[in-house]
Amino acid sequence: MLQIPALDRLVHELSRLPGIGPKTAQRLAYHILKNGLEQGHKLAESVMRVHSEVKQCPRCFNFTDLDLCKFCSDAHRSDDVICVVEEPMDITRIESSGAFRGRYHVLHGSISPLEGILPDQLKIVELLKRVETSQSDSCATAIKEVILALDSDLEGDATTLYLAQKLSERKIKVSRLAHGIPIGSDIDFVDERTMGRALENRMEV
Amino acid sequence: MLQIPALDRLVHELSRLPGIGPKTAQRLAYHILKNGLEQGHKLAESVMRVHSEVKQCPRCFNFTDLDLCKFCSDAHRSDDVICVVEEPMDITRIESSGAFRGRYHVLHGSISPLEGILPDQLKIVELLKRVETSQSDSCATAIKEVILALDSDLEGDATTLYLAQKLSERKIKVSRLAHGIPIGSDIDFVDERTMGRALENRMEV
Repeated sequence: MLQIPALDRLVHELSRLPGIGPKTAQRLAYHILKNGLEQGHKLAESVMRVHSEVKQCPRCFNFTDLDLCKFCSDAHRSDDVICVVEEPMDITRIESSGAFRGRYHVLHGSISPLEGILPDQLKIVELLKRVETSQSDSCATAIKEVILALDSDLEGDATTLYLAQKLSERKIKVSRLAHGIPIGSDIDFVDERTMGRALENRMEV
Repeated sequence: MLQIPALDRLVHELSRLPGIGPKTAQRLAYHILKNGLEQGHKLAESVMRVHSEVKQCPRCFNFTDLDLCKFCSDAHRSDDVICVVEEPMDITRIESSGAFRGRYHVLHGSISPLEGILPDQLKIVELLKRVETSQSDSCATAIKEVILALDSDLEGDATTLYLAQKLSERKIKVSRLAHGIPIGSDIDFVDERTMGRALENRMEV
């Protein structure tokens, strides 16, 4: 508490952001104040503009400012494979690898009964409908494979299992990202579960 | 680059904040977008409000939303000792110790020729004038001591030396914070310069 209401409120709003503790929030608030009105105005305006201009793509639910996001509207990407991710940000990581040229589907979260997030709060029905529609006669290209690229934590794994089961009813290939040792990492620093998976999935040279 | 201009701009504005790299800025921007319009509006508004409501105290240059900051207007604090700090945030740290009941003076930075910050860009003239005025006949309480509580880095030390020299011309007691081993710390983890100072300034038990 800095006992200046406007400053305290800014600290409060900043500390609601992920990874920003009260001390960092205080440092940021002082910086914003020190940096002057013009810089502050730019920041405030960009926060408001992002809400007025960016929406969810009606097909894949990625963020976009177009009618259809750039991945859905790109004619050079293949329609028969969909990569399912938890958050729009995950797409950036996958794209930067250059190893995927299909379409995306963003769930906007993962199943977490503890946090009260159930399958119907995610874009799962929409995913199943997308697969179903593509398999109907009227559609030119059927979806043949769904790659589940979800976080490898408890919630991600639960969601992967749930989706694998739902999608298997639809006679479709379902795959998930490989687990193993990160490229360029020291064997020393690899945790035991990753090492276990890397041994299990070892490949002949 | 997320190729959505409004989102890219928000990432850019966020990454200008201290300690926020491009990846963190991206994560924060997605969070702000996901969190909805109402939350975004609160953040933007608090950024704007801090600029319209918070000003510098005309006496000590601490941030305040009053005519005179709460430390300058508090009748229970002694007028004869001033603690000089680099930033308004430093006052919070000193106040939390409960060991100081005098007045403050905020320089808003430290002398750093490399970054082009010279003495006349800081509130140094104002400090010297404050001391001078208090020593004139018309003033009830003369300032007897100035405590320099500046960072113990190159810039802080240079500013301390500069101020010590300027203030000594005014026949006043000038002191600085003690260097030594932090309370509760392991001797193992104390760096060599701190240890050197702690030995030099050792006290009889």
